[in-house]
Amino acid sequence: MLLNRARLLASPAANTVFTTVLTRGPVVRPEIARITGLSSAAVTKAVKPMIESGYLEELPQGPRTIEGAGRPARPLAVRADREFFVGVKVTADELIGVVTDLRAQVVRAAHRIPVIDRSVEQVVRDIAVLVAELTPAHAERTHHIGVSVSGDVDRPGGVVRYSPFLGWHDVPLAELVGEATGLAVTVENDVKALTVAEQWFGEGVGADSFALATVGVGIGCALVVNGRLVTGGYGVAGEIGHIPVASGDGPDCHCGARGCVEAIASEEAIVTRARRAAGDPELDMAGAIDRAHGGDAAVRAVFDEAGKAIGLGLAAMVNLVGPERVVVSGEGVAAYDLFEEQIRAAFTTQAFGAAARCPLVVRPLPWEEWARGAAAVSIQSLFAA
Amino acid sequence: MLLNRARLLASPAANTVFTTVLTRGPVVRPEIARITGLSSAAVTKAVKPMIESGYLEELPQGPRTIEGAGRPARPLAVRADREFFVGVKVTADELIGVVTDLRAQVVRAAHRIPVIDRSVEQVVRDIAVLVAELTPAHAERTHHIGVSVSGDVDRPGGVVRYSPFLGWHDVPLAELVGEATGLAVTVENDVKALTVAEQWFGEGVGADSFALATVGVGIGCALVVNGRLVTGGYGVAGEIGHIPVASGDGPDCHCGARGCVEAIASEEAIVTRARRAAGDPELDMAGAIDRAHGGDAAVRAVFDEAGKAIGLGLAAMVNLVGPERVVVSGEGVAAYDLFEEQIRAAFTTQAFGAAARCPLVVRPLPWEEWARGAAAVSIQSLFAA
Ligand SMILES: [Zn+2]
Ligand SMILES: [Zn+2]
Repeated sequence: MLLNRARLLASPAANTVFTTVLTRGPVVRPEIARITGLSSAAVTKAVKPMIESGYLEELPQGPRTIEGAGRPARPLAVRADREFFVGVKVTADELIGVVTDLRAQVVRAAHRIPVIDRSVEQVVRDIAVLVAELTPAHAERTHHIGVSVSGDVDRPGGVVRYSPFLGWHDVPLAELVGEATGLAVTVENDVKALTVAEQWFGEGVGADSFALATVGVGIGCALVVNGRLVTGGYGVAGEIGHIPVASGDGPDCHCGARGCVEAIASEEAIVTRARRAAGDPELDMAGAIDRAHGGDAAVRAVFDEAGKAIGLGLAAMVNLVGPERVVVSGEGVAAYDLFEEQIRAAFTTQAFGAAARCPLVVRPLPWEEWARGAAAVSIQSLFAA
Repeated sequence: MLLNRARLLASPAANTVFTTVLTRGPVVRPEIARITGLSSAAVTKAVKPMIESGYLEELPQGPRTIEGAGRPARPLAVRADREFFVGVKVTADELIGVVTDLRAQVVRAAHRIPVIDRSVEQVVRDIAVLVAELTPAHAERTHHIGVSVSGDVDRPGGVVRYSPFLGWHDVPLAELVGEATGLAVTVENDVKALTVAEQWFGEGVGADSFALATVGVGIGCALVVNGRLVTGGYGVAGEIGHIPVASGDGPDCHCGARGCVEAIASEEAIVTRARRAAGDPELDMAGAIDRAHGGDAAVRAVFDEAGKAIGLGLAAMVNLVGPERVVVSGEGVAAYDLFEEQIRAAFTTQAFGAAARCPLVVRPLPWEEWARGAAAVSIQSLFAA
């Protein structure tokens, strides 16, 4: 039985109610009314079709009670196994896929397929293969897939506008994956997808604003402000990598400006500068990390500068946007011990007044978490009006 | 007859409906439903008490019609003269007050009172004098006042936490002004108040995100993102003045960091640097502007550097937050011809990709507009749940 979306989404109130139960449940109706500001009647009305269609259920006993209430309220919970969702993260080297339930809990751990041919046709075929491998146990209750890709993604249009690492331009990925898999497809930028997962199911639950910064091949950031992802009036937002933290004497950036965080602290920038520092044109990132750990002061200084640039960029972002917390992740977190002292020192110096209280939470997020993020956006697509 | 607030604000829907009519009206009910996502029944229900209490009225004929509708819909409009609002902007030198109607149109042009004694007691007394001068014609329909102050303001608590220019710490201004005037008081940071006025009644109408940057004694910025003012998880947001645009070789900033926009482009920074450049320790801002206009290359370079710092700061903000447009204002706009070229050049270089399309709209906002902003937050207080 497919979801009757029109019925479930009859009103914005229904959307809000479902999200509240999803992220805060089990929760009793009066508490839903309190959290959402809706009337009790509106909550009751919105909940009814969700119970009938099996997305919500009433639990027999309440883990939370309302003091002074007459008869005990029965808390509502999401029926996690009502439906399953595929999430696929596409990197330049491999596809990583998971299956989650309606609460974004992983029920099939990551499958991986190497990407040998980055052509759109081959990647779409590989996604279909991955889906076939992942879903058999839950096939009849799996109707949605989320696919996340780094780069500029038009989520409403289902189009990957530009993905530098894949070399893709204006690829109608949602349509192509839909044809290949028969599933309803949501396409999203990978960092934004991860942020949705954090907002709905992770560090961001209950936060009106938070930021997820990623450090690695690029320096990126997704922002949730006033409860929603910031998408940018012109499709650009969260470009923490292109804050000019050293405009006076900074290196050129690929974006055309100078002294950007990314020109100092991206993996490529670090390797380039470490090669110069070490006098070794063959040095790679692993080698640079080894040298820094081994006490090579010149290479160590490259990581220090990178850490300082990242810390200044994070502080500039926190000074502007004021998130309640910042999660720092990405491939670069593997070498975080080399960055951390400078990141925290620069952040503390540059954060303005009370903004310095904003916690920086460092979290390594394995690829499976990114794939889970892709699944989270497909869950979200059920409830987006 | 005082507003029955509980009745008007019976639900979040009522709040949304009123705001829609206020900012988009005259507008017919079906269009309200379309804009807000509410059902027709919910719109009709919300509108009823607003008409009864005289805040909304039905116009006889619709300037906008819905095609294919049976009987012609009667558009709703706000009754602008239903109630009046006092707005007072407090500066270090004077109080500026206006009276506006419910649509934030100024009905009594600015009155001013010089601030000779900056003590809280005297300023509160002066505000009461200003109110008495402003309101007689509309006294029986004036129940609310907004007061705006530069610095750190706790709007919900009605407290000025810190205002450097007034030398105030933790002043319960809402309570004090309420006692002195008998009006319901809303206190807000001055830039945020101006931004509310722009969002509800100016450049920001219909924009999901925009920024208002002010250049002058300080470099500030208020942001609207996802339709709401950004307040910051720790009360700090929009601190464009403390983005480190020249961390490598920049001057010390009063915030404790180096190379901040404000350390290069605030009025004090410009005067300090211009004195050095001109070798004249007595030079003031007007003198610096004169010298730059007169062709003094060294002083001119000080303005160029300031313009570059502002442009980089604006670009960093646009790269992060992605506003649909940026309004640039403040006292510094008077010398904007000296900044503009460098602001635009730096902005264009640093803005990332499509973010460069974000328009920078320069608008001198006279003090009366700031006072109107204070009135706008008191109008807004009617509808904030
Ligand atoms: Zn750049
Ligand atoms: Zn500063």
